[in-house]
Amino acid sequence: MNILLLNPNTSVSITDRLTHVAQAIAAPGTRIAGLTAPRGVPYISGRAESQIAGAVLLEMMADYPEPYDAAIVAAFGDPGLAAARELFDVPVIGMAEAAMLTACMLGERFAIVTFAASLGDWYRDCVAASGLLPRLAGIRFSAEPFSSIERVASEREDALVELCVAAVEQDGADVILLGGAPLAGLAARIASRVPVPLVEQVHAALLQAETLVRLGVRKATAGSFARPAAKPTLGLSPRLAVRIEHQDV
Amino acid sequence: MNILLLNPNTSVSITDRLTHVAQAIAAPGTRIAGLTAPRGVPYISGRAESQIAGAVLLEMMADYPEPYDAAIVAAFGDPGLAAARELFDVPVIGMAEAAMLTACMLGERFAIVTFAASLGDWYRDCVAASGLLPRLAGIRFSAEPFSSIERVASEREDALVELCVAAVEQDGADVILLGGAPLAGLAARIASRVPVPLVEQVHAALLQAETLVRLGVRKATAGSFARPAAKPTLGLSPRLAVRIEHQDV
Amino acid sequence: MNILLLNPNTSVSITDRLTHVAQAIAAPGTRIAGLTAPRGVPYISGRAESQIAGAVLLEMMADYPEPYDAAIVAAFGDPGLAAARELFDVPVIGMAEAAMLTACMLGERFAIVTFAASLGDWYRDCVAASGLLPRLAGIRFSAEPFSSIERVASEREDALVELCVAAVEQDGADVILLGGAPLAGLAARIASRVPVPLVEQVHAALLQAETLVRLGVRKATAGSFARPAAKPTLGLSPRLAVRIEHQDV
Amino acid sequence: MNILLLNPNTSVSITDRLTHVAQAIAAPGTRIAGLTAPRGVPYISGRAESQIAGAVLLEMMADYPEPYDAAIVAAFGDPGLAAARELFDVPVIGMAEAAMLTACMLGERFAIVTFAASLGDWYRDCVAASGLLPRLAGIRFSAEPFSSIERVASEREDALVELCVAAVEQDGADVILLGGAPLAGLAARIASRVPVPLVEQVHAALLQAETLVRLGVRKATAGSFARPAAKPTLGLSPRLAVRIEHQDV
Amino acid sequence: MNILLLNPNTSVSITDRLTHVAQAIAAPGTRIAGLTAPRGVPYISGRAESQIAGAVLLEMMADYPEPYDAAIVAAFGDPGLAAARELFDVPVIGMAEAAMLTACMLGERFAIVTFAASLGDWYRDCVAASGLLPRLAGIRFSAEPFSSIERVASEREDALVELCVAAVEQDGADVILLGGAPLAGLAARIASRVPVPLVEQVHAALLQAETLVRLGVRKATAGSFARPAAKPTLGLSPRLAVRIEHQDV
Amino acid sequence: MNILLLNPNTSVSITDRLTHVAQAIAAPGTRIAGLTAPRGVPYISGRAESQIAGAVLLEMMADYPEPYDAAIVAAFGDPGLAAARELFDVPVIGMAEAAMLTACMLGERFAIVTFAASLGDWYRDCVAASGLLPRLAGIRFSAEPFSSIERVASEREDALVELCVAAVEQDGADVILLGGAPLAGLAARIASRVPVPLVEQVHAALLQAETLVRLGVRKATAGSFARPAAKPTLGLSPRLAVRIEHQDV
Repeated sequence: MNILLLNPNTSVSITDRLTHVAQAIAAPGTRIAGLTAPRGVPYISGRAESQIAGAVLLEMMADYPEPYDAAIVAAFGDPGLAAARELFDVPVIGMAEAAMLTACMLGERFAIVTFAASLGDWYRDCVAASGLLPRLAGIRFSAEPFSSIERVASEREDALVELCVAAVEQDGADVILLGGAPLAGLAARIASRVPVPLVEQVHAALLQAETLVRLGVRKATAGSFARPAAKPTLGLSPRLAVRIEHQDV
Repeated sequence: MNILLLNPNTSVSITDRLTHVAQAIAAPGTRIAGLTAPRGVPYISGRAESQIAGAVLLEMMADYPEPYDAAIVAAFGDPGLAAARELFDVPVIGMAEAAMLTACMLGERFAIVTFAASLGDWYRDCVAASGLLPRLAGIRFSAEPFSSIERVASEREDALVELCVAAVEQDGADVILLGGAPLAGLAARIASRVPVPLVEQVHAALLQAETLVRLGVRKATAGSFARPAAKPTLGLSPRLAVRIEHQDV
Repeated sequence: MNILLLNPNTSVSITDRLTHVAQAIAAPGTRIAGLTAPRGVPYISGRAESQIAGAVLLEMMADYPEPYDAAIVAAFGDPGLAAARELFDVPVIGMAEAAMLTACMLGERFAIVTFAASLGDWYRDCVAASGLLPRLAGIRFSAEPFSSIERVASEREDALVELCVAAVEQDGADVILLGGAPLAGLAARIASRVPVPLVEQVHAALLQAETLVRLGVRKATAGSFARPAAKPTLGLSPRLAVRIEHQDV
Repeated sequence: MNILLLNPNTSVSITDRLTHVAQAIAAPGTRIAGLTAPRGVPYISGRAESQIAGAVLLEMMADYPEPYDAAIVAAFGDPGLAAARELFDVPVIGMAEAAMLTACMLGERFAIVTFAASLGDWYRDCVAASGLLPRLAGIRFSAEPFSSIERVASEREDALVELCVAAVEQDGADVILLGGAPLAGLAARIASRVPVPLVEQVHAALLQAETLVRLGVRKATAGSFARPAAKPTLGLSPRLAVRIEHQDV
Repeated sequence: MNILLLNPNTSVSITDRLTHVAQAIAAPGTRIAGLTAPRGVPYISGRAESQIAGAVLLEMMADYPEPYDAAIVAAFGDPGLAAARELFDVPVIGMAEAAMLTACMLGERFAIVTFAASLGDWYRDCVAASGLLPRLAGIRFSAEPFSSIERVASEREDALVELCVAAVEQDGADVILLGGAPLAGLAARIASRVPVPLVEQVHAALLQAETLVRLGVRKATAGSFARPAAKPTLGLSPRLAVRIEHQDV
Repeated sequence: MNILLLNPNTSVSITDRLTHVAQAIAAPGTRIAGLTAPRGVPYISGRAESQIAGAVLLEMMADYPEPYDAAIVAAFGDPGLAAARELFDVPVIGMAEAAMLTACMLGERFAIVTFAASLGDWYRDCVAASGLLPRLAGIRFSAEPFSSIERVASEREDALVELCVAAVEQDGADVILLGGAPLAGLAARIASRVPVPLVEQVHAALLQAETLVRLGVRKATAGSFARPAAKPTLGLSPRLAVRIEHQDV
């Protein structure tokens, strides 16, 4: 199957890392196409940037020239997830949503550990939107600075392990998610130092994408995730306009 | 004071109606500038269109050349509301949020009455996002067709009154909101036929905008609605880039 | 318009302060009549005192000899609010409710800061009654003594600022309400020392009262806030009896 | 033990019926003193009447000249319950609360069946205040008229049975409460016609009062149900003033 | 009346203590038969042990040769409670559920204090299952070791008192439950050292059992607690098979 | 990988069907061992049967002589799921939980459609236990009889399709789960007649089992899903006793 891994921020190095981590766990027949947002910011950390990135994500999906079987929103706060799920015909997976739902099969309450306060605030909105706040043990973040988002995972590794342990001992977490694309791949490195299951966000997203494709579910033609009725558009990117105007039918 | 009324869809006639209804209740010193989205769809009715419209709304706020004291997101589902509130320094009011919070001061449970099923689904998300689902008596909509969004309020007036009455008698609504920009101004016309208070969405938004300006509250410099830290951007509209990159400081 | 500001406790000095703070923000045509409870306690701090004060408040509204357009329950826990809203024809605003709903337009989660533990407990009931607990970041109070309720705002000012800052930094508050009539007017004095918006409770109440009057909503004749059917009464204050017995119709 | 059964409305015939039904199930050593409100309305059916009745209830408890071991608020919406529980030293039982909590030991979800729409609205507030909305299957009421509250139970008996059956079959109720003092004693008469357990509100209240007395729990001296600190009062009934001013210590 | 006190763990000494504490508060005509689980573990402290113990409890109820009027599940996490309530005709009381519901009549929020971390986790599930999480102030436990479950109450008495006080002062508890069968009888010993009401779990269970029997409610024949339809069984204990197969009808 | 498919009821034909449906979607290297409960009832439809079946399930897992990588609780109400997840080292998947969490990635609200009222009641408990009630659009069931559980899927196929359509049109479902082991395999047959995605429960369970195994997460050694401390046991099945007593360490 062909899976689109959509990095809604503009950092190609992050896209490369996400694709690499995803490929490592993919089934033999799964091909992953990693795409980087053509517009936006190098890393997304709040509501405004997420609003913009979510709209760009729709363009990225509309613009992709080849057929694909599923798409992954590869930023932990899942910008544009519900919009993409409504507008397009293939399953769309959010990296945060996939990690949270997977965590729910490993324990009663999960914690999210990340590397910046602003991410913690945004991620909390994301948990709330999914209705999973009752399953959230807490969100912990490292407040100290780092030299670059490419290096934050290695530079702050010990601090992140300490936050994981605190989430278990003080917040009652049964499972932990490391949130934020720059932490992709970290779970495997620190799993032995954390006493509860760690869900690798990229792995969860890729595996859930494969799951939905293998399930073979159809696109809704009724209900709130049916494709919206055709509408005229003004000034949108050409392929996105085609999709909204139903010129592809 | 100067208030920006931002219509995040592309229908100038709707902007004109919204501005007209708002001006009718504004205080003597309030000047309302009605703006129409330069890109998007003529009316927004779902998650995908809202995702796009919310991003355009940020551009509209960034691009406006004159100073203003508050901004109104003048579409009932409030696209881009939290994003705008985070990114900009002035108070930002959502038409749906303002109507719902105002309704909470008039009774225990409110209902939303609108003119299309797809709107009902989207509005429910909007109520959920505000945490006000426990105060929602129900959402009712007219499923029958209409000739144009400009005329839906007059063509479907009797059906909408019947839905209001049903919301009171069958759903236990204490207050009713007529949702959707095309219904702007309808509340006054049908108020005498509905046995509970009707909150006019445009009036609620304008009055709450005046309220927040008169309160004189400051922009947060901490917490999750502080302005995000400066970041480089790529390919965004020039004035929005200036705002995100803090070149305006 | 004419607005009744009802202080449900017996402290005339508090009524004067509340009226003074309200007048400062009122629109040119707004006349505020400040009334002090003829019976009760000098300040209300719990469920029992609130039960009594709420009943006295109904008498105060019934007894007032002039017409008025709206009434404000000017104690932060809103004693008698729902009862008054049901029984009388004009909009009734609660100082706590108005402050909370206004705060919801300025951020995701609000904190309440007050000056006594017993108030914190009572205010929590009040937030719960409004259904807004999911929006509450926390309630913090100063546990140290003060010489009088008239002076508590000035004597404990520094401590209250510290509580506000702690609510932001430790509880994740985006907005703060200073709760309790003796803190009326304090928000303006300390706003520059608190890094998030501070909602002045009296201003919020007055502005929301003006909002509801300007909206021009009707009294419900159906639903749970319709005026109760006429009933005989025994031993109630004469004007309240008139209202309950529908002798004023 | 001595139990005060406080009817917060002014109908002596209702007090007599409540006392009679309670006495029928009381333990040998339990003496019940039935008191009728000296002020108020003949039956309470909403927020305003409940606000007044709750304040009168505090006076009734303060005024009672003999010692007693517990008090029952004998109106289904429990006017003044939390206030009385806070102010006085003995356990205070609400008839609605006792019936709901007892029902929770007999099934997962309970329904309330009553005889007037206005009661249904008020009772819903009461369920919400207890935090038990997730356990509520629904509230059903008979909308047809009746000649007097003394006779409503017999006149509407068949209709009430039908509502009970509908609550089971359509709302998923596992247990049913007949709510409203005029329905006291009805449960026993119709139990054989309803296919799930019926909780008699008066029996539940009396038995829970005995339970709390036999438990021998102390009055809180800390927490939100500790007796409020002494305060001066103005114009209150003499014995209530004594209690609030701590002149009884 | 005859009440079965079912200890679902295998410790006869615990059964004896529970029966002794229950008997001390029982009404004159109440006979308590204390039964110890014939299979299982000496004390239950988690989900797996509770799953097993709940199934054994059903066998104990089915096997008991004499008629009885009610049964108590005498382990604080209430293993098998809903199952027993569904399968058998008599009222079934859970020790934790009875204590929690009783506590709800004594204050707004209760805390649970216990003697081991693993119990705290299990008890939280139990509160959640009852829908009472909004009434839970917190769960506190002593993490230090003890020589045996028989002696834990006396050995850790001072530490448990400190936890109770902390639950009041730091968590806002209005009432406290001492959870866990090995703490049976402790409440009376430490009540004077804790500033809020302490609910003795065994007393609450016994008194609520008497309450349900005296109420005289019928077994549901509809709804989700009606006896399940007859089914063939394989390999179950003989009397339990009889019950499930309806051979007792 | 080796996956244990545990049918906690005694119907071998159902086990065969479940295994067959699971095998059809399994990855090339996945071996499925289908086991039938040695004790219990032929189909589980309520709390009591689930309590018993969940305990038997623990024995089945303990008794299985070969190593395995994950286990599936193959009854829609997930009897014993949390217990098994706590006691054993491998991931344990519940068929209902897996289907619900998978559905959450396909829409906002899911409905459950099943073939008997008693299942609907039990399944609702199951949704509640997972914290997903806010995502539940409703549960619909066919109340009419059928000749055998083996044939219910084919005999009631048209009725089940109608229930699915009603769940979409009247309850607002975005996704539908067909619940109950006897409906295994039905989703593929009726998918074209239902306008929203249908999640096949067995496929969801198998795919999620593969997902958790491929994720490679560790067993918790802390938190509430750590293996319980060793304890003596009495009268349990030998291999289960070994597991609880830690004789396998």
